[in-house]
Parts: sequence; C-alpha cells; structure tokens
Amino acid sequence: MTPQPNPQVGAAVKAADRAHVFHSWSAQELIDPLAVAGAEGSYFWDYDGNRYLDFTSGLVYTNIGYQHPKVVAAIQEQAAKMTTFAPAFAVESRSEAARLIAERTPGDLDKIFFTNGGADAVEHALRMARLHTGRPKVLSAYRSYHGGTQQAINVTGDPRRWANDSGSAGVVRFWAPFLYRSRFYAETEEQECARALEHLESTIRFEGPSTIAAIILETVPGTAGIMLPPEGYLAGVRELCDKYGIVFVLDEVMAGFGRTGKWFAADLYDVVPDLMTFAKGVNSGYVPLGGVAISGAIAETFAQRPYPGGLTYSGHPLACAAAVATINAMEEEGIVEQAARTGAEIIEPALRELTERHPSVGEVRGVGMFWALDLVRDKETREPLVPYNAAGADNTPMAAFGAAAKKSGLWPFINMNRTHVVPPLNITEAEAKEGLAALDAALSVADEYTV
Amino acid sequence: MTPQPNPQVGAAVKAADRAHVFHSWSAQELIDPLAVAGAEGSYFWDYDGNRYLDFTSGLVYTNIGYQHPKVVAAIQEQAAKMTTFAPAFAVESRSEAARLIAERTPGDLDKIFFTNGGADAVEHALRMARLHTGRPKVLSAYRSYHGGTQQAINVTGDPRRWANDSGSAGVVRFWAPFLYRSRFYAETEEQECARALEHLESTIRFEGPSTIAAIILETVPGTAGIMLPPEGYLAGVRELCDKYGIVFVLDEVMAGFGRTGKWFAADLYDVVPDLMTFAKGVNSGYVPLGGVAISGAIAETFAQRPYPGGLTYSGHPLACAAAVATINAMEEEGIVEQAARTGAEIIEPALRELTERHPSVGEVRGVGMFWALDLVRDKETREPLVPYNAAGADNTPMAAFGAAAKKSGLWPFINMNRTHVVPPLNITEAEAKEGLAALDAALSVADEYTV
Repeated sequence: MTPQPNPQVGAAVKAADRAHVFHSWSAQELIDPLAVAGAEGSYFWDYDGNRYLDFTSGLVYTNIGYQHPKVVAAIQEQAAKMTTFAPAFAVESRSEAARLIAERTPGDLDKIFFTNGGADAVEHALRMARLHTGRPKVLSAYRSYHGGTQQAINVTGDPRRWANDSGSAGVVRFWAPFLYRSRFYAETEEQECARALEHLESTIRFEGPSTIAAIILETVPGTAGIMLPPEGYLAGVRELCDKYGIVFVLDEVMAGFGRTGKWFAADLYDVVPDLMTFAKGVNSGYVPLGGVAISGAIAETFAQRPYPGGLTYSGHPLACAAAVATINAMEEEGIVEQAARTGAEIIEPALRELTERHPSVGEVRGVGMFWALDLVRDKETREPLVPYNAAGADNTPMAAFGAAAKKSGLWPFINMNRTHVVPPLNITEAEAKEGLAALDAALSVADEYTV
Repeated sequence: MTPQPNPQVGAAVKAADRAHVFHSWSAQELIDPLAVAGAEGSYFWDYDGNRYLDFTSGLVYTNIGYQHPKVVAAIQEQAAKMTTFAPAFAVESRSEAARLIAERTPGDLDKIFFTNGGADAVEHALRMARLHTGRPKVLSAYRSYHGGTQQAINVTGDPRRWANDSGSAGVVRFWAPFLYRSRFYAETEEQECARALEHLESTIRFEGPSTIAAIILETVPGTAGIMLPPEGYLAGVRELCDKYGIVFVLDEVMAGFGRTGKWFAADLYDVVPDLMTFAKGVNSGYVPLGGVAISGAIAETFAQRPYPGGLTYSGHPLACAAAVATINAMEEEGIVEQAARTGAEIIEPALRELTERHPSVGEVRGVGMFWALDLVRDKETREPLVPYNAAGADNTPMAAFGAAAKKSGLWPFINMNRTHVVPPLNITEAEAKEGLAALDAALSVADEYTV
C-alpha cells in the first residue's frame, strides 16, 4: 500500500491521456488530469509518491473503498467462470444479484431491471412510468442531478442541463424543500415541509394530474447539496402520487446502498416508491452496473405486454457478481451500520464543531456518510462563498479551498459553494479524523474570503 | 469444456430469475429464459447437458468468443491492481485503451470519449454534433438500430422505437439503399446508390441544411438486416455532409472491431466520418464499455469550452483493461484477418449454396462474419416469410425455423424474417461447418412455409 514513485510511467500515462482521452464535463485543453498509480481502501496515490485520503469516494460510488479483497476475488472468480452472457438468458450471478437487491429494497420493489449505470436507469424508469400511466409529463426538482443521457439530463435541475436542454418538452420542474435557502419564506422545517407540499400539489393541479406520469426525486439530493427532506415531506409526496395516480420514482443512485447509514435512504423515511433507481454503491462501481427496482403493479403492466426497452449488457454477469460480493461483504462486515455509527459519532460532531468555529461554514447538513458544508461569504446573509455556477476568477475562493485540502493530503468533493464529506462507508476512525483535520486547515483558507 | 449436467442448480437459477429479473424487450410472463451454465469459445451449455453452437455471438458482441484466456487473465490482473477509478483522472488502462483504439480508427478520429455501451455512445455523439453545429435536427435511416435510451431509440428506425417515440422531435428519417427491397424502383446497385443519394439530398434541401446537425448511419446496418451499402454510397453521404456542413456520424457498435473482416466497416469503403460510435466488439462485452471516436475539428470545439456531458464510469479501468487485452489478442492472433478469410472461404460459399437450394432463402447478404439470410414465402415476389414486426401465430414460420435450429444444437440469430450468421470471428472451420449443416436442416423446416 506504500506508493512507489514512478514518474516516468506517470508521464507516459498522462501523455497518452492528453493525446487520446476525451474527458467528461470538461474543456479538454483547460484540464490537467492527475495520473493515478494506485488505490486501496480510503486512499489513492499518484506516480510522484503523493498519497491522498479520498473524501469523495470517487464520484460518491466506492462505498466499500478501493480494492476490497472479497470483491476483487469475486470478480476474478466470475471472470474465470463466465465473464459475459446475453440478457435474454438466466445466469447465476444475475439471478443472485437480483435476489439480494430485491431482498433489501423497500416494499414490493421485487423485480430488478439491470442497466449499465444511473443515467440509463433513470431513462428506463421514466419510460416505465410513461407507459404504465399513458401520460406524458415528468415532474422533477430544480436542485437535482439524474444523469448525463438526454432524458436523464433533461429532468436534472443543475446547470449541466442547460447546454443539453430539449426545451423542457415533457418535463416540469418544481422546488423541493430546503430550509437553509428556502423558496417558501419558511422559518421552520415544519413550515418548509408544508409549503413545499402545497407548492407541489398546486403545480400538479395547474399542470393537470392526467398529464403527469411521474414525480422523480433523489431521496436525499446528492450533488445538488445533500438536503435531507424534512420529516413528512416524502410521505406527503407519496400521498399526492396516490391521490393523482402518479408514479413515484426515487433516485437512489447516490444515496442508496448504505450511504445514509441505511441500505436505502427511503428506509430513513419509511417511504416506498413505485420505482427506485440505483447504481454506484450497488457494487461500488467495481464493474459498471445500475438498475431499476420495480413495484408489483408496474411489473404487472409488462407481464403480458412487452417492455419496449433493453440493452446488450443488461444484467452483465461480471457486474452482477461484483454486486453479489459487495452486498455480501457489506452485510458480513456490518458496513451499513458502520456508516451510521461513524457518521453519528465521528463525522457529525466534528463537522458541527467546524461549523461553529469557521466563519466560512454557513450550514452543515447530512446523515450517515453523506454530509455537506455550505460555504458562505457571510453567515448572516448566507451569501454563498462563490456565485451559482461560478467559473474562472469568480470561483477563486473554492479553488483556493480545494488546493489547500489537496496540499494537506485530502482529496475533497467540491460542487459550487459546497464541499461534501462523502468518504467510503468503511473508513476507519483514525482516517476520518485525519481527513477532518485537513478539512479544518483548508476551511481556514476559505475563511479568508468571508466578509 | 464438457457441460456437466446439474439440473438442480439450473432450477434454482431459473427460479430466482423468474422471481426477480426483469428482462429487456419482453413481456415478463411470456418468456422462458434458458438457464446457461457455462460458455467457452463458440459454444455455451445449459444445466441439462445441452450444448449450443452460438451463431449469434451473444447479441453480436462476443467477437473473440467466450472466455478468451488472455482477456480473462487481463481482467483478473486489472482487478487485482485497480478495478475502478473516477473519470477525471489519467489512468494507465484508460490511456492505453484510448491509444489503441485511436490507432485503429480511420482518419483523424483520435480522441476517445468512453461510455458504458452503444446507446449512450450514440446519445453523446448526437449531443456533440448538435453543439458543434448549433443545429437541432438529426437525420437517420428507417432500417436501423441505434440503442435503447430515449435519444438513441428515437433515431432508431425499427419498430422498437414506436412505443418510445417522442413524436420525432428533432429527428427526420430517410431511406438508405437496399436493392433487394428497393424503395427507389431501382434495378441495379448503381441505380439504387444514385437514387438513394438523390433522395437524401432532396431530404436535406427540403428540411433545410441549416437545421441539420448530423446524419447518423450504421456503416453496415446490423439488426435491421446487414445491408451492405453499394459502392459509392457512403462516399456520397460524406460529400453531402461536407457540402451542407453536417456532421457525419457512423455507428459501428455492431459492425466495428473486426465483424466485417476489417477493424472498422468504414475501412471497407475508405470513408472517414466526423464521429464514430463503438461498443460490443471493443472488448467483446467482457466488461461493459462503449465510446465515441472524435475528429480533430469536433474535439477543437470542446478545447476551450466544456463538453456538457459525462458519466461516472467513463473510461472504467477494468473495462479499458479488457479492451486493451482484446485488441492486443485480436492483433496477435490475426482474428480480424481470420474473420475475413473464414467469411470468404467457408461462410459465403456455403450460404450462397443454401440460397440456391432452399426455396425459403430469398437473398444472402454480408461480408466477413456478418451475414443475413432474407427468408421469403416466395422467391419471385420476395414476400417475407413472416410479415413486418410479426408476433404470435403470424410468426410461426420463423419460430419453427428457430426451434429446428436449436434442436440441432445451433443457437440462431433471428430478427423478423431474417436469420443472421454472426458467430465469433475466431470460430474454427470445423465449427463453422457444423453450424452451417444445422442451418441447412433448419432451413428445410422454413421451406415448408413457402408457396
């Protein structure tokens, strides 16, 4: 696990990357990708001997950390046995992954449609909802992210949608509750919750319930800021869906598989959606995999009538074997419980203390291993430390914060004016404390940009 | 490689599948998925001791056959080293896969954007084309398949689109050349080619060139029927794209990576598109992977301006390691040349002989290891053996053909009134002959349904 410096190999990896790899979400000549030599547990390292503690879990997906030995072994065994097989067949690892997932999903979400990732899971969930109801529209929240393909990015609420916007055809956006930056002039969680539900019901009634196929929400919005819904909100949305015959889709691509200290974030609220999307944590992204968990009523719609959707790698045996091993390892090692415990006992108290002490921290929010610090110029006005969707010089304060964290050996998750604390669920106490100390130091740099 | 019967395990795999796996493109209660116990080379077997020769390559993706030892070993090694890492970094297997692919793609398609499969490759290619041109529309062919996500299925021409149709927003369809079932009243390939190009140019001019971002074509349409474009057609489309400032997208998800006896089908025609999509054969689907190869001009559009698209598993290290091993194995073992040779020396002569001898075979078409038999009720009228998009009793002749093939130990690829001969590229001569003999017997069953 000790990084072995090897700058020559690093330079070659970097050169080929710059010559031939086109990167996600980037201006290709304005990026400078770090060449990564290895990773294990909660750490990764480059070719120059620098090691980083990963407070991002990649893109919030390596829930069991890097190179978990049981999952690596399961991938190796499945590769020897059956790497791949077409989706129309019954295959052992596919059957077993579906069974283990269905055992854990809430309510009667007992049929699993496998995809390659979260975006196509959302694509298929919305298709199922439209065909099940025969209605065209989808309602989604402004502060949300649902994936990068055309349908998924168009129900997304964050600015990554703008350049891909299909003119909102078939999509209507609403505001979900978020007391710290309330759109409802609310002063308490109860008020925020009640007003958000009134706002949603008004939107449904004015759009026309008979035109709405689905409401899609991240159970706990992830990249958009980890805003825990207030008690009663999701139950209220469930009631509205039942009242108006709308399919309730919960997106658990980021929040699912232990991130919140429960198998699914829906378990925190005792709510059962009609469709639930997942990816990332299902096998910690060791092999690309996503999917949709489907209720009995919606599965029944496609019992005698073909579901018009599919993909070559649906239920990929290698990806499913990684899911089986991941779920079993999480169960055997109590990783979900560990996430809840480390979150409550180590992360939360430390982040609350940092929030009190640093002028740049406006609010801390989260649960389990899913935390956000909302950074501000001014605690009173709550003015964000950088403007919405800032770039270049406007983004200097967050860039300075990020550079300071990396200098201390911490790789931070940064989105707009926020840093998220989303390490692997099985990070040790000592590692968590090491990261929190580095975060403390980096926040002192952010403090310099407050009023 | 001898199948070990184990019906009890098979029953358990099947039971869990039926309880929990939601299958692609299917009415869930009308299917009866075969439980597959193992696979090697060009064969797979069930739990009851039945072995099948796979003339489908899965869904036309296991180009190197099942369980190629070099690729299995590479997956095991990469799993031990680095199963996964986030897309914003430079990673050895990602860099090397991009380099090896760029080395083989035609012209200046030298930047590789990795996706999880073919559908999202098409999604991203069309997004790049729209942003590069600032134009809204895409032109695609009626006889085509481009993937299962919402944008990809909406440019698709086959009936799987219908239930997902967004009302053709942003998509215009045209007819590509296909002499056997000409839409242009043509009698020669030259006439079909010239008229298809006139038809396409008229469509461009009447739609308005300034509204058209892209023309997307499968270089050789796959599931739609393996219709080799006549000499000069793709060069003509290239000219029209240049004349009207339209991005030319070639979809090589099925035709690429050796299927046609060349690395890419575009090489058969010496044509260079602006964007080329790939998946399947890139690593024989051993780990989900797809991508877009991007020209210099389009990469330049996103040099200083962010490309607004991405995905968590872009350039997944394990998938890329499988691609590196697959491409190297194909090179070392001469698998692309083998495909060309086996196609020309074994498959083509045998299929031409079957076409002459069987009244049910209207036409044989193809190249390399990419062949279609167009089955008909009547060779004179060319009436298809079953109607377009037939189901149930209407489909009896094709169902009887399929059952007969399976009874002889051949697993056939069937789409509408066609069977495709698309085995692994490295199938042996003896295996190919075994499959052709079984095909011969099954065609005798199809013959019973001719006039």
